[in-house]
Amino acid sequence: MKIVLDGMGGDNAPFATVEGAVLAAKEFGAHIIIAGIKDVLERELSKYGSHIPNIEIHHASEIIDMHDAPAASVRKKKDSSINAAVKLVKEGKASAMVSAGNTGAVVCATTLYLRLLKGLERPGIAIVAPTLKGVSLIIDVGANIDPKPVHLLQYGIMGDVYSRAILKKFNPIVGLLNIGQEASKGTDFIKKAYDLFAKSRLNFIGNVEGRDLFNGKCDVIVCDGFVGNVVLKVSESLAESLSALLKRELGESFITRLGALFSKSALMAMKREMDYTEYGGAPLLGIDGICIICHGSSSAKAIKNAIKVAAEFVDHKVNQHIVEAIAGSML
Amino acid sequence: MKIVLDGMGGDNAPFATVEGAVLAAKEFGAHIIIAGIKDVLERELSKYGSHIPNIEIHHASEIIDMHDAPAASVRKKKDSSINAAVKLVKEGKASAMVSAGNTGAVVCATTLYLRLLKGLERPGIAIVAPTLKGVSLIIDVGANIDPKPVHLLQYGIMGDVYSRAILKKFNPIVGLLNIGQEASKGTDFIKKAYDLFAKSRLNFIGNVEGRDLFNGKCDVIVCDGFVGNVVLKVSESLAESLSALLKRELGESFITRLGALFSKSALMAMKREMDYTEYGGAPLLGIDGICIICHGSSSAKAIKNAIKVAAEFVDHKVNQHIVEAIAGSML
Repeated sequence: MKIVLDGMGGDNAPFATVEGAVLAAKEFGAHIIIAGIKDVLERELSKYGSHIPNIEIHHASEIIDMHDAPAASVRKKKDSSINAAVKLVKEGKASAMVSAGNTGAVVCATTLYLRLLKGLERPGIAIVAPTLKGVSLIIDVGANIDPKPVHLLQYGIMGDVYSRAILKKFNPIVGLLNIGQEASKGTDFIKKAYDLFAKSRLNFIGNVEGRDLFNGKCDVIVCDGFVGNVVLKVSESLAESLSALLKRELGESFITRLGALFSKSALMAMKREMDYTEYGGAPLLGIDGICIICHGSSSAKAIKNAIKVAAEFVDHKVNQHIVEAIAGSML
Repeated sequence: MKIVLDGMGGDNAPFATVEGAVLAAKEFGAHIIIAGIKDVLERELSKYGSHIPNIEIHHASEIIDMHDAPAASVRKKKDSSINAAVKLVKEGKASAMVSAGNTGAVVCATTLYLRLLKGLERPGIAIVAPTLKGVSLIIDVGANIDPKPVHLLQYGIMGDVYSRAILKKFNPIVGLLNIGQEASKGTDFIKKAYDLFAKSRLNFIGNVEGRDLFNGKCDVIVCDGFVGNVVLKVSESLAESLSALLKRELGESFITRLGALFSKSALMAMKREMDYTEYGGAPLLGIDGICIICHGSSSAKAIKNAIKVAAEFVDHKVNQHIVEAIAGSML
């Protein structure tokens, strides 16, 4: 099994991408193809000493950056590292891809070249979020910002499959993100989605609210990509703001500074527990191929963990299970 | 100036509502009418000793509870404490109302009986959120979950007026909550709203993302009521989850317990800074009257602060300024 990594994608590329690949190759023997500008990647790789047998470089001359328009750049920059990675997956030369690059471009390139799994209408990005009781999956956080109700149902089905296969949840509880618990709440769009979920075979708990996102009430939380994206960014920034506030408060007097020293290990543990990078990247579900999307600011550790998630995705035949579940849902 | 308080609204009514009224009457001499079931309110009020001259009770025999359908309950329960409060405002017997009751019912009753300000099409709930640099206003957090683009522009205008009058901001920076900064990002709905903002006289900074909600980048953040409601509840719960996690981590060893003891004052200060109750309730902007909505779980302190905000709202003639600004926006 080979995994192709977009070597040029992300704010910290190529440093973090190459280091992440080296860590993954060394720590769990992953075989990695790094796609991108050969000279740049070779120079970066040479920092890690002699030849690493598990890593090869695949030259791609162009870079789609974070500000490029997704669809246009995928079509124009034909030899971008993102397109190159997608093509290696399409040709069967890699089993999965990992990218911390322009998310819109990754969604666009994979949908365009790999196409969707049978029965699926739209892809969705799922993230694994830490909660007070283990982890939950939130889908979609930005692949599809204007979905139809049936797309939400398909997200629920894919989330259910992923939770069982990768997160080892038994009969995952699925909730629909809404502004209130009652079935009568929300827009017409969300009420139609509710009806589809209620008729499905999913272990559907009904509507959940924003406050249920991190309390572990559900294993899978379904929302449209606009709401999911906003929520994800709010959560990240709020966690950061709280840390900053706490640091500011802790710095204010000798007594609290002393307290900070003593409680440092607890703060570190908390930070670790809330750290998205610990859980690897976000799977792009629904495409006929495997793609793990990483945060643009991914560190080498985040890249390494995303490569691990990609390998697990391959091992557990997630896509095959998704196709079966989607087919079963239409009986 | 008299302020009418919905005595029966909220999870902690009538205890927290009556105590909040007593605190407001004593601390800043507010004159308060408490609407609700007379016997219940009198019994509760008697706990605070002899007659408090600034507080009177207005009997209303019915209660709209948190699970009642908003529109139906406002029409059926004609003598509810919410309806009674709205009518006292309509008749000019009170200058403003405060309620921690069923938010949907409050929005419905005020819109139905007080009507909207001239030129306004929908009301919006604005909350004052703490950020790393002072406070920001987020509007709408749930009054209107399926708005048109022009409603968002009107929220921006009302938010601008409120920020100037009450939050003492000079030329407030207004941002539109979206999934990316570029004008090309988002749904058709949000792109149309962007165009309206770009042509307006507001100090419009463009699109902002979820991560900008708590970093103080904007003074006024505009979003639809669905997204705003989800974001608000996510933020509240995440702050709570982080506190719980921190407590759990801090409790784990003797050293960290000692650290916790020392850093307790810092934690308390942080909690205070993040505490919505410190900032009083959320103004319902756009109605032809003044209404401050409190969180269902409001404490007496939160009620007291909401009464203070209501009084400031009256003093600063916010509604008059809103009507002028809306009229000016259409020149």
